[in-house]
Amino acid sequence: MLSIWAPSGITEVNAGDDLAALVLEACAREGTSLESGDIVIVTSKIVSKAEGRVRPQIEREAAFAEETVRVVAARDRGGSLTRIVENRLGIVGAAAGIDASNTAPGTVLLLSLDPDASARALAAALRAATGQQVGVILSDTLGRPWRDGQTDVAIGAAGIQVFDELAGQTDAAGRPLRVTRPCLADELAAAADLVKGKTRRLPVAIVRGAEAVVGGLDLPGARSIARAAEDDLFRLGTDEAYARGYADGYDEGTAEASGPDDEGDG
Amino acid sequence: MLSIWAPSGITEVNAGDDLAALVLEACAREGTSLESGDIVIVTSKIVSKAEGRVRPQIEREAAFAEETVRVVAARDRGGSLTRIVENRLGIVGAAAGIDASNTAPGTVLLLSLDPDASARALAAALRAATGQQVGVILSDTLGRPWRDGQTDVAIGAAGIQVFDELAGQTDAAGRPLRVTRPCLADELAAAADLVKGKTRRLPVAIVRGAEAVVGGLDLPGARSIARAAEDDLFRLGTDEAYARGYADGYDEGTAEASGPDDEGDG
Repeated sequence: MLSIWAPSGITEVNAGDDLAALVLEACAREGTSLESGDIVIVTSKIVSKAEGRVRPQIEREAAFAEETVRVVAARDRGGSLTRIVENRLGIVGAAAGIDASNTAPGTVLLLSLDPDASARALAAALRAATGQQVGVILSDTLGRPWRDGQTDVAIGAAGIQVFDELAGQTDAAGRPLRVTRPCLADELAAAADLVKGKTRRLPVAIVRGAEAVVGGLDLPGARSIARAAEDDLFRLGTDEAYARGYADGYDEGTAEASGPDDEGDG
Repeated sequence: MLSIWAPSGITEVNAGDDLAALVLEACAREGTSLESGDIVIVTSKIVSKAEGRVRPQIEREAAFAEETVRVVAARDRGGSLTRIVENRLGIVGAAAGIDASNTAPGTVLLLSLDPDASARALAAALRAATGQQVGVILSDTLGRPWRDGQTDVAIGAAGIQVFDELAGQTDAAGRPLRVTRPCLADELAAAADLVKGKTRRLPVAIVRGAEAVVGGLDLPGARSIARAAEDDLFRLGTDEAYARGYADGYDEGTAEASGPDDEGDG
């Protein structure tokens, strides 16, 4: 039996705020307390606010350039530019995770410099304050190819098994050599979004009943979820890949057709 | 507060089995009963078994061809062929959802012919038997670009709000014109996988506490999650798109270079 709830009262978060204290106070106000095996899932937005990762709206393009490693795909639809990029954390998503919703007027929020480190620090503080072995996930909202809408995923994690390693199993397609690895961290982040929502000002959720997932703070973080571009069948958008191929093919075609042995062939 | 649990005792499912009866018996054995607002999340595998969507292993390639609308991307790595395809349901995933894990020896399982209809039939049966307004999701396990591991998603749904419509909100990137639409059905399927798991023979999970998501059986199903290929920035794999571009560019290049006005230019 899994229980998931979102303690209320964590509304405004400002630079320098102690997130561990905010979470523990919210639990105390509701007469609950963290137990070993609990997983605290925190919307990355309030971590960015607590860490002061804010910029003036006017510096948004500069921040976007700083956060972006490479543009994966872009499309301009009637002035509305969508840019899917890989950010410095290896996360592929829209606008490098720069957030202008529910931020102070005229400002944008950048993702934590190191979400896994932020998660570790929060988990360590919660464990020290309570003596309970709790896990922490930082969640963000991402769109995805092929399916409409968005789901929350884990961009930071500490003290939890990010993957359910099922070595030896066959995968959903029955290929015996491939290993099925459910991404528990992403499934936990998605579950937490069901109680947090986007409009209810409930930026923290607690999952109880997944003790088997919780472990030491030295477990791999959410960085381990990001797949290297060279291993990805969709490392570049369809239009971008077609354009690169067209340019290379065109060069090759003109070179061959106008090459010295052209007459000989024709 | 959300509660999620997986009733035990639903082990072997065979062609013709009454899934509604199996779910209700499992609940009864544990002294629980379905309540209005509950969402029953069923692993699509047992729906396929109940519907007799089985084929001899030897017909696997033929079944794959039947289920596949188009190949999105393919890669052969040391004899292990990965094929990402769009199936007849508009779902993009590996091997068209054909499943050879935990199936009868020498057989493979195909996805339900119409997962939304299967979900509607199960929801209608559960509502008729209990008098309670319950929702139903059929879940399957899918990999995704850019992130390792898999998560469970909804391939069928009935009696639930598939999306949380947040019109007017700005999205995670702060673009005011874009609408954030959390895919509740996928987040519920992911949450359910946390209690079902892949190895524990618990193919059914019940989510309690999401009453706001449950509604009439005429609500749109999971088919509404599939994005049309022409609207997708990743409708084709990077290598496939590059190859198409290269071929088109090569043809254009040779045509121009060896065209009649070639001498005039050079």
